[in-house]
Amino acid sequence: MPNAPLPHTPNIRDLVVISDGTGITAEKFAHSLLTQFDIRTKTHRLPFIDTVDKAHEAVQRINDLASRAEEQPLIFTTLVNQELGEIVKARARGFHIDLFNTFIEPLENELNLKSNHSSNKLYHNADSDRYRERIEAINYTLMHDDGQTNHNLMQADVILVGVSRCGKTPTSLYLAMQHGIKAANYPLIPDDFERNCLPSGLDGFHKKMFGLSIDPQRLSEIRNERRAGSKYAAIENCRYEVNEAEKLMRRHQVSWLSTTHKSIEEIATTILQELQLEDKF
Amino acid sequence: MPNAPLPHTPNIRDLVVISDGTGITAEKFAHSLLTQFDIRTKTHRLPFIDTVDKAHEAVQRINDLASRAEEQPLIFTTLVNQELGEIVKARARGFHIDLFNTFIEPLENELNLKSNHSSNKLYHNADSDRYRERIEAINYTLMHDDGQTNHNLMQADVILVGVSRCGKTPTSLYLAMQHGIKAANYPLIPDDFERNCLPSGLDGFHKKMFGLSIDPQRLSEIRNERRAGSKYAAIENCRYEVNEAEKLMRRHQVSWLSTTHKSIEEIATTILQELQLEDKF
Repeated sequence: MPNAPLPHTPNIRDLVVISDGTGITAEKFAHSLLTQFDIRTKTHRLPFIDTVDKAHEAVQRINDLASRAEEQPLIFTTLVNQELGEIVKARARGFHIDLFNTFIEPLENELNLKSNHSSNKLYHNADSDRYRERIEAINYTLMHDDGQTNHNLMQADVILVGVSRCGKTPTSLYLAMQHGIKAANYPLIPDDFERNCLPSGLDGFHKKMFGLSIDPQRLSEIRNERRAGSKYAAIENCRYEVNEAEKLMRRHQVSWLSTTHKSIEEIATTILQELQLEDKF
Repeated sequence: MPNAPLPHTPNIRDLVVISDGTGITAEKFAHSLLTQFDIRTKTHRLPFIDTVDKAHEAVQRINDLASRAEEQPLIFTTLVNQELGEIVKARARGFHIDLFNTFIEPLENELNLKSNHSSNKLYHNADSDRYRERIEAINYTLMHDDGQTNHNLMQADVILVGVSRCGKTPTSLYLAMQHGIKAANYPLIPDDFERNCLPSGLDGFHKKMFGLSIDPQRLSEIRNERRAGSKYAAIENCRYEVNEAEKLMRRHQVSWLSTTHKSIEEIATTILQELQLEDKF
C-alpha cells in the first residue's frame, strides 16, 4: 500500500473516510450530508482497513494531516470490527461520525438479533450469483449498445430509444452496472422518421421500451463537441430530429423523459419506476 | 408515478427506503448495515419524495404494506425537508432510521454552520462541470475499450492491460462512471507474448499502466460461457496465456492484481490506491 502523506489544502476542510471495505458507499453518504453545508472539503478515502496494524497506520496518517490543517478533519468510519473502530475513535484527531455503530445497536434491538460483525466486503461479494448476473448484464448491455444487434431481445429488461447523443449509452450502462438490468438501446434516426416506424426488430417489445428525449439546444451543444459545425450538430437539424422522435414515440405510445437536466442516476431511477422494474439487488 | 401496492413476501422483512433524491446511496447504505444480520429482506425504494402530497402517498403505501406483513417494515429515510421527514416519522408504521437528521445536528455544531436544507438532488447535479466530466470519461472509456485506438492516450488516467476476459472492460467502465476516471484498456494476446512486448503504442505511458490477472481455472469457466469447447477457452490455453501475461507484466514492471475473487468496486479501489489517483468527485 502506498503511504504518501494525505495532502492538505489551506482553507479546505479535510474529510477522511475509513472503511474495512472499499468505503465507496460511505464516501457518497458523507458527501450527500456535506452538500447541506456551505463548505469546501477534500476527501481522503482509506479503504481496506481490516487489521489492527492498518488501523494504527490510518490513525498516524490522519494525525499527520490534522497537524497540518487549520481545523480538525471530519472522520467518517464504517468499521465492522469494534476493536478497529475503537482504535480510530480513541486515537485519531478529528470529528468522528461512526456510520456503522450508530445504527447497529438500534437494529439489534428491533430485529432481536445480534449482528454478526462480518466484514463489509461481503456486500460486494464477487463470488455470488448476484455479482455474476451483474457482470452478465454489463456484457449484454455493451453488446446491445446503439442498435448493434437484435439478437436475444427477449432477454432485455429495458429497451431505450432516442436520438443520437441524448444519453442512451451512459444510462444503459448505469442500469446494468448498478442495478443488474439488461438494457438494450436503439437510436432513432431520420430513416425511422421517414418510415414513421420504430426501428425494425422492436415489434412485440413495447412493454419494455422507454424513450429518452432532450432539449434541442443542449443536443446541439453536445453534438458540436463531437463534430463541430456539422449538419448533424446544427440546431435546425437537432430541432427536427427531437421533434420527429417525440412524434414517433407519442404515436407508438412509448413513455419518455427529457434527459436535459437529469443525471444518469435520476434517469435510471425514473425508468425503473415507470416500467415497474425492480432492482435486482 | 405508478402506484401499485408494494409487494410483501411471507417471512421476508420489508425494507423501505424513502428519499427526496434517487435514494440509491441510502439503499446501499441500508443494505450494507443489514448484511450484518442473518435476515432476508425485500427492498422497496421510494424515490423523489419531495412534496407533502408525495410524503402522504408514501405513508399510505407503507402502511398498506405494514398491514399485510408479519413484522413492521424497516424504514430508512433521507429527507432534507424536515416537514416531510416528520410526516413519515409520525405516520408511517415501521422501525425508523433517519439517515439524514441523525448526523446533521452534530455536523452543524462541529462546523458552526446551519445546514441549508437544500435538496439531495444537488448531489447528482446534471448541470455541473463535474457531471459533464463524468460523461466525458464514460465516452472516452468506451472509445478506448479493448485496444480499439491509440489516439489520445495522453488523456488517459489509467491504462489497463490483461488477457481477454479477465475483467478489464467492467473495471474500466466502473472507474469512468463512478470516479470520472478516463480508463483505456488493452488485451494482452499471443502476439504480444511472442514479441515479448506490451501492445504497441503504450510506450511512454508506464506510469498509468496497471495489469489485471486471473486464476486460469476461473478464466476457462468464463471463456467457456462464451465459446464452449473452443481452444480459446481450454484450460491449457488459459494457463498458457495467464502465465505469459504475468511474465510480460513482471518483465515490464507493471503492477497487477488478481481479479478472481474481487468485485469491480474492490478492483477499482485498489487501482486508484496503487496509482495514487484521486477520485475526481
